[in-house]
Amino acid sequence: MLYAVIPAGGSGTRLWPLSRAGHPKFLHALTGTEASLLQSTVDRLGDLCSAETTYVVTGAGHAAAVARQLPSVPDENVIVEPSPKDSTGAIGLAAAIIARRDPTGVMGSFAADHVVRDEQGFRAAVQAAIEGARDGWLMTIGMRPTHPSTGFGYVHCGDPVTPGAVVRHVKRFKEKPDYDMAVQFVESGEYLWNASVFVWRVDVFLAELARQQPELHSGLIAIADAWDTPDQDQVLGDIWPGLPKIAIDYAVMEGAADEGKVATVAGDFGWDDIGDFHSLGAVLAGEGRTNVVVPATGAAPPPVLLHDAERVVVVPHSGRLVAAVGVRDLVIVDTADALLVCSRERAQDVKKIVDMVKARDDSSHLL
Amino acid sequence: MLYAVIPAGGSGTRLWPLSRAGHPKFLHALTGTEASLLQSTVDRLGDLCSAETTYVVTGAGHAAAVARQLPSVPDENVIVEPSPKDSTGAIGLAAAIIARRDPTGVMGSFAADHVVRDEQGFRAAVQAAIEGARDGWLMTIGMRPTHPSTGFGYVHCGDPVTPGAVVRHVKRFKEKPDYDMAVQFVESGEYLWNASVFVWRVDVFLAELARQQPELHSGLIAIADAWDTPDQDQVLGDIWPGLPKIAIDYAVMEGAADEGKVATVAGDFGWDDIGDFHSLGAVLAGEGRTNVVVPATGAAPPPVLLHDAERVVVVPHSGRLVAAVGVRDLVIVDTADALLVCSRERAQDVKKIVDMVKARDDSSHLL
Repeated sequence: MLYAVIPAGGSGTRLWPLSRAGHPKFLHALTGTEASLLQSTVDRLGDLCSAETTYVVTGAGHAAAVARQLPSVPDENVIVEPSPKDSTGAIGLAAAIIARRDPTGVMGSFAADHVVRDEQGFRAAVQAAIEGARDGWLMTIGMRPTHPSTGFGYVHCGDPVTPGAVVRHVKRFKEKPDYDMAVQFVESGEYLWNASVFVWRVDVFLAELARQQPELHSGLIAIADAWDTPDQDQVLGDIWPGLPKIAIDYAVMEGAADEGKVATVAGDFGWDDIGDFHSLGAVLAGEGRTNVVVPATGAAPPPVLLHDAERVVVVPHSGRLVAAVGVRDLVIVDTADALLVCSRERAQDVKKIVDMVKARDDSSHLL
Repeated sequence: MLYAVIPAGGSGTRLWPLSRAGHPKFLHALTGTEASLLQSTVDRLGDLCSAETTYVVTGAGHAAAVARQLPSVPDENVIVEPSPKDSTGAIGLAAAIIARRDPTGVMGSFAADHVVRDEQGFRAAVQAAIEGARDGWLMTIGMRPTHPSTGFGYVHCGDPVTPGAVVRHVKRFKEKPDYDMAVQFVESGEYLWNASVFVWRVDVFLAELARQQPELHSGLIAIADAWDTPDQDQVLGDIWPGLPKIAIDYAVMEGAADEGKVATVAGDFGWDDIGDFHSLGAVLAGEGRTNVVVPATGAAPPPVLLHDAERVVVVPHSGRLVAAVGVRDLVIVDTADALLVCSRERAQDVKKIVDMVKARDDSSHLL
C-alpha cells in the first residue's frame, strides 16, 4: 500500500485573477470536470492507496476548504503547516509522520494542481516507481517531453538500473533551459521533464535528508515525535518557524543524484501542471484553432459570443456575457472583481500584473 | 439667429456594450469630458443659437434623459417621435415646426453624437454655411478627409458658387466607397466626407421635401399645423405611424444635388462621428502607440493595469480592476453585465455580436 502525500500550497500567481491567495488553483475545477484539481489528484491514484493512507499538507488558510473537498480523508491526515516552508518542509513533515506509523513505508508525493490525461498510464508509472522505491532508490517520475519547453526543469537519465529495467539512473537535475538547450535535450532522448513527482521509502528519504539537511531533519523528527500527543500543536508551533525554507529539488534531490541515489521512470500519460492560462488552453483544446470556454463549476454558464475568434481561452466566472470579435491567441478571464485580457504567448507574464496589484494599497484583488 | 436641430436617435450598435438601446452613445461622455456627446453638441454651437432656438428630436425612451441633460432647452423644444422614422422624419418635423414660428428661418441639423476638436473652426464653418443658406442653397458641411476612409459617404464638390467664395456647388453625393475609390477621392482634392450636417432655410428645405416626398411633406405639415394646440398629441399619434421611414440623404439631398440646389463648405475642424471603438481610440489618442482609458463620468475610475500593451482602448465602466498583458490594437469594454474584447481593426464587426445577442431569447444585454 502506497502512502500518498499531496502538498497543496502556492496561490497560482500566473492563473490570476482566477486563482487567488484565498482560493488557489488546486481548489478549482479548471478542466471542465466536476472535480477540483485537488480532488482529481486523489481520484487518479485509485487503488494505489486508500483514504487512510492519503495525506494532504496545506496552509492554515486552506485547511477547511481542503477538508471539505476531501471528505473521505481522515481529519488527522490533513496536515496544516503553520507557515509556508516550501516543499521540503511540507513533504518532509509528512514523511516523518508516516515513518512513525510505518518506518519502511513507501510514499509518493503528488502536487495538488497537476492534470493527467491517461490515468491508467499514470498509475502504471507510479507502480513502477514503487518497485524502484522498494529497492531503495529515491524515485522521480519524469515526463516524456512533447516539445522543447523552457518552462520546466529537466531530468538527465542514465542507464537502466538493471539491464532491461524501466527504472533508470538519474545523472543530474537540470534547471529550466533556454530554448536551444531545450531543443538539444528533447532531441537527445535522454531527458525528461522534472515534474517534482517523487516516490521513495520514508526511511531512505529521511536518511538522505539527515545527511544533506541535518537541521531540517532533526526539527521535523522532533515535530513527528510529538505528533498525536497532547504536545503536538505546541511543538509544531515552537519548532516550525525556525526551519529553513527550501525547495526539495535543491535541498535533497540534486545532492542525492550526485551520489547516484536517484532513479526515474518515464511517464507518458498526458501530464501538465497548468502553470498558466496558455497551458490550460493547450490541455483543453490541444494546439488547434479551437476556442476554449472554462465555465465555473456548478454555475449556469453565462453566454460567450465569439465572432471570428481562434485559440481564445475564455474563463467566464462572473456570470456576465462575454463577447470577442476578431481576436487570436488570447486569454480572457472574467471574475467578479477583476478582468484579465492576455495574449497566450505572454501568459507567464500574468505574474507581472499580480506584482502591480501587490504594489497598490488595495490588495483585495489578490484575495 | 440659427435654429439648431439635434436629431438624437440610434443606439450606437457598434459601441455595444457601452452604448445600449436604453442608454445610447449620445447620452455618454466618451471623450474624457464631463459633458455627454449630446451636451457637447449643444455647447459647441455657442452664440450661433440660444437655448430657445435649440431643438432636440428624440425617441420616447430617451426624452427624459435628454431633457435632464439639457436643462436650459425649453420643454417644448424636446420633440419626441412616437416611433423611429429615420432622419427625414426627425429633421422634417423640426423644420415644419420651426417654419410655423419663423417661415424663412435658417436651421442647421447637427447629429448628437459627433465630436469636434476645433470648436471655433466648427462655428466658422457653420457661419459660412448660414450665409449660403440665406442665399437659398441647401447647405451641407463636408469634412476635409484626413485619410481614405471607407466608413463614410463622400460629397463631390464643384466650383465655388461665386468666384472666390468658400461655398461650392455639390455635384453629387457618393455612397461609402471601396478602398481604391476612396484613395482616388482623397487624392483628387474634390471630395469631402459627408457628415450629414445640413444648414438651410426651412422654406427652401420644405419646398424641396414637397417636390421629392409629397406624402411625407403633407403629413409633417399637418402635424406642425396641430403643434401647440390641444390636438397636438392626437394628430401626431394619428399621422406619424403612416409616414415613410427614410434617410434624408436618399429622400432629399441626392435628388436636390442632381437639380443643382445643394452647396457645401469644407470643414477642417477635427471631426469624427465615433462610429466605433477604433475611432474612439483614434479621437482620444491619435495614431500613436498610446493606450486609452475611458472611465465612466462621475465614478471613481477603477484600476487599469497594463503590461506591455499598445494602442489598447479600455472602457472600464463596471468598477472592476481591468488588467491586460502583451496585447496590441485591442478594445476592452467592461460593463456591469457584459464584456467585449475586440481587435481595433474589427471594431465595425461589433454589430455582429449585437446580432448574436438579439438572436438569443434574453435581450437584457441590449438594454
